[in-house]
Amino acid sequence: MNSFVYDIPVKVYFGENQLSHLGEELSRYGKRVLLTYGGGSIKKTGLYDAVVSEIKKAGLEFYELSGIAPNPRIESVREGVEICKRENIDVLLAVGGGSTLDATKWMAAGACVEHDPWEFFSQWAPVEKALPVLTVPTLAATGSEMDAGGVISNPETQDKIGRVAKPLLPKVSFLDPTNTYTVSPYQTACGAADMMSHIMEVYFNMETDLYMLDCFMEGMMKTIIKYAPIAMKEPENYEARANLMWTSSWAINGFTHGGKQQEWSCHPMEHELSAIYDITHGLGLAILTPRWMEYCLDETTVSKYYQFGVNVFGIDASLEPMAVAKESIEWLSKFFFETLGLKRTFTEVGIEKKNFAVMAKKACGGDVLLGFKPLRQQDIEQIFEMCL
Amino acid sequence: MNSFVYDIPVKVYFGENQLSHLGEELSRYGKRVLLTYGGGSIKKTGLYDAVVSEIKKAGLEFYELSGIAPNPRIESVREGVEICKRENIDVLLAVGGGSTLDATKWMAAGACVEHDPWEFFSQWAPVEKALPVLTVPTLAATGSEMDAGGVISNPETQDKIGRVAKPLLPKVSFLDPTNTYTVSPYQTACGAADMMSHIMEVYFNMETDLYMLDCFMEGMMKTIIKYAPIAMKEPENYEARANLMWTSSWAINGFTHGGKQQEWSCHPMEHELSAIYDITHGLGLAILTPRWMEYCLDETTVSKYYQFGVNVFGIDASLEPMAVAKESIEWLSKFFFETLGLKRTFTEVGIEKKNFAVMAKKACGGDVLLGFKPLRQQDIEQIFEMCL
Repeated sequence: MNSFVYDIPVKVYFGENQLSHLGEELSRYGKRVLLTYGGGSIKKTGLYDAVVSEIKKAGLEFYELSGIAPNPRIESVREGVEICKRENIDVLLAVGGGSTLDATKWMAAGACVEHDPWEFFSQWAPVEKALPVLTVPTLAATGSEMDAGGVISNPETQDKIGRVAKPLLPKVSFLDPTNTYTVSPYQTACGAADMMSHIMEVYFNMETDLYMLDCFMEGMMKTIIKYAPIAMKEPENYEARANLMWTSSWAINGFTHGGKQQEWSCHPMEHELSAIYDITHGLGLAILTPRWMEYCLDETTVSKYYQFGVNVFGIDASLEPMAVAKESIEWLSKFFFETLGLKRTFTEVGIEKKNFAVMAKKACGGDVLLGFKPLRQQDIEQIFEMCL
Repeated sequence: MNSFVYDIPVKVYFGENQLSHLGEELSRYGKRVLLTYGGGSIKKTGLYDAVVSEIKKAGLEFYELSGIAPNPRIESVREGVEICKRENIDVLLAVGGGSTLDATKWMAAGACVEHDPWEFFSQWAPVEKALPVLTVPTLAATGSEMDAGGVISNPETQDKIGRVAKPLLPKVSFLDPTNTYTVSPYQTACGAADMMSHIMEVYFNMETDLYMLDCFMEGMMKTIIKYAPIAMKEPENYEARANLMWTSSWAINGFTHGGKQQEWSCHPMEHELSAIYDITHGLGLAILTPRWMEYCLDETTVSKYYQFGVNVFGIDASLEPMAVAKESIEWLSKFFFETLGLKRTFTEVGIEKKNFAVMAKKACGGDVLLGFKPLRQQDIEQIFEMCL
């Protein structure tokens, strides 16, 4: 069992009507705010007005950057950095989905360096500091509101790269489940698949670690399985939206990791898909995950599948471990492709075989992905083929 | 479902050999350290020497206060306050069990005010600030290393009072499971009962709240039930000690509370027992909890017992809820009194009927304890009688 450091000092206001604290929290960090958001849906829902009203009430000056797209581009980050520098921004406020939050974090880091922000990804330039970031998420999925990571795409180089750096951790996040009421059933399903994957990337691990963390992960997976279908059918079900929202934060804020060292598997593979095909991240993960599970199942890994099947799906513990393992993959597939109604294959979403070699090579960094099972280029190509 | 604020910025170094970070962490807060500890067992185990060596390596000046007793007294707090003031202490380092940690937190608060520290309890004097506190716990039980509370006894007034105040939250805690290897089987059992109670006080609640938090609490209870007997039989079982240690912190750091408003029940009752009889806190809780559950069980509360019985003890979900509920109390009693080997009755630990009325009145503050079920003096007296 490895040692670890737990350090997640994000303050969270959870629930309805907490936005009245926004002004006081922003004010702790300065006077000049950059408000960032996506395609403008927050104007339709009234969230934009509510946020702006709180900023004004607190007597803060603010600038805006809108139009941050899903799978956010380095170009948006560059724009934000430019505003931060030009307008001497003190604090950034990201209102939107994971893409807006991720892009904003990298603007905050980019504002503190002289070089182009893509160098954080292309050259792994150090992230020593960042401007403070506050967030108001409108989607339960990426967990960006409580973690120190952000994923940025570069269409020119067909790269989509995630990186974690402590200074990117938001200072304060406002999690209001009602802000996710307008998320479509499809995006709710993709968000659920994304969260499941965040948990499974850590849970499927043969390192000895803390049982209490496994229990927590099983509880979160049960929560997603219970509430995602409810939120799809009843978009304004507060209980469902609240459970999904708090789970999305805890699925990836680092708590579940404990001392585990293992790399993630499905996320690096998926990033290559959406770098080229621009598909929704959660959808890509849903297609990949059960096939990856099939590929990794053998006598050395079966015990983890057994634990998953029994504790998450309630499969009969008296069955043979291998039978439980296979059944657990079926249950997960049923959840993704029947209950959530997501597409099951690459073919259905227009991903063709021709790019497999390139994508697989990139996913393992040209060498090996040290995930649940070590995956080399040919392993990843095989998993891709299983997804066709 | 109520809104809530999550804000637990405690940094935790978890695992073996993390003490090498102690000097750097203390140095963030100043140069003059007050090291506090209990009866000196840390000198026998070598922990004292290890801590002092790190303090010296960092070039810090340090003072000591030892002899902090279980159920820590206000007198120890006063002594610590005096040293802090006299020696211009910058930061306190508590090494020991929950009693040492609790007393140290209140020294840190007392050092920032002019009045006697007992006024924090007798007059509810405001706690606006405190000196920074770092902790090295040697027991998995109270969770004091990651919460903002502390319980102090006053033998003169026969009071034992707990109070929570944000400035008391430790800055950094070093959780090394090997520091709990020397905890006796009996104290390990009492610690396990204390943790179980911390979870159950929140879990047994009829307010609508987050299912994901219930799952987390069930996972922690299963962790305690699985590992406490192992730690008793194999005191140097790292896996068992590590699971108990991280669970003890998360059982009471506030995460499980979500938006629940309900007061605690067994803790206020137990505090009256140990205020007069000075019994171990966890033992008092073990005796009280199953009887309190019996007293509160009825048609309006049975669903919570059912959930507890099925999800924590694996009782057959197809049985009648009331049958599951009763069986769950039996399972818990079996765990406390057979597996952990704790005494089952007040009579066995020398608690007599003569003080019941006084203790019951104090426990409900002379009015009503708004716990799982509202408890007035006569209710509490009845629960006490059931414990005889």
